[in-house]
Amino acid sequence: MENCIFTKIIRKEIPAKIVHEDDQVLAFHDIKPQAPIHILVIPKKELVSLEDLTSEDQMLVGHIYMTIQKIARSMGFAEAGYRVVVNCRDDGGQEVPHLHFHLLAGRGLKWPPG
Amino acid sequence: MENCIFTKIIRKEIPAKIVHEDDQVLAFHDIKPQAPIHILVIPKKELVSLEDLTSEDQMLVGHIYMTIQKIARSMGFAEAGYRVVVNCRDDGGQEVPHLHFHLLAGRGLKWPPG
Repeated sequence: MENCIFTKIIRKEIPAKIVHEDDQVLAFHDIKPQAPIHILVIPKKELVSLEDLTSEDQMLVGHIYMTIQKIARSMGFAEAGYRVVVNCRDDGGQEVPHLHFHLLAGRGLKWPPG
Repeated sequence: MENCIFTKIIRKEIPAKIVHEDDQVLAFHDIKPQAPIHILVIPKKELVSLEDLTSEDQMLVGHIYMTIQKIARSMGFAEAGYRVVVNCRDDGGQEVPHLHFHLLAGRGLKWPPG
């Protein structure tokens, strides 16, 4: 995890366009956006994927969704809508080994979702 | 909400291929699968979308992710991986007005996610 890009972003060792930060989560713009708005919301806790979650992380997951709602409202796209995507391991298309929630908005998202 | 298809599935007024049920959530196969495995995980609480969540629902959201993990392990696709997708309102592509989490697995999911 020491060399994980998201860990370095959390530690401010590399820059990111941060949109929200608190003691539990960090949210920043994806460097390869797939929609006009594409933000990553990550827990500061070092969890590799959804498979690392335990029952003690349930409030953390809830807080991530509260954060997504807060960002959607403050950036003005809550009413139009958005999509949240979480990739877990290879079949999910996960590329960075730190749990992250993709928040996509600003266009009509299509179906199927990849 | 009375006429919502998911409300009717929760009430067992219309059938569904249920894979998990407890006091808080119901999980069943999507009738229009977009992957070899495509399950919907929904709260029994009547929430229209992610925008309906309040801070008191944080544990419920966490429980939904615990349920996703449980399904992935019991159905044997946790190791290969999976994708979770939540569509909120029009731009998200939400079609049924009851909060639902899409769980897709069984093939390599592509990028962008719709």
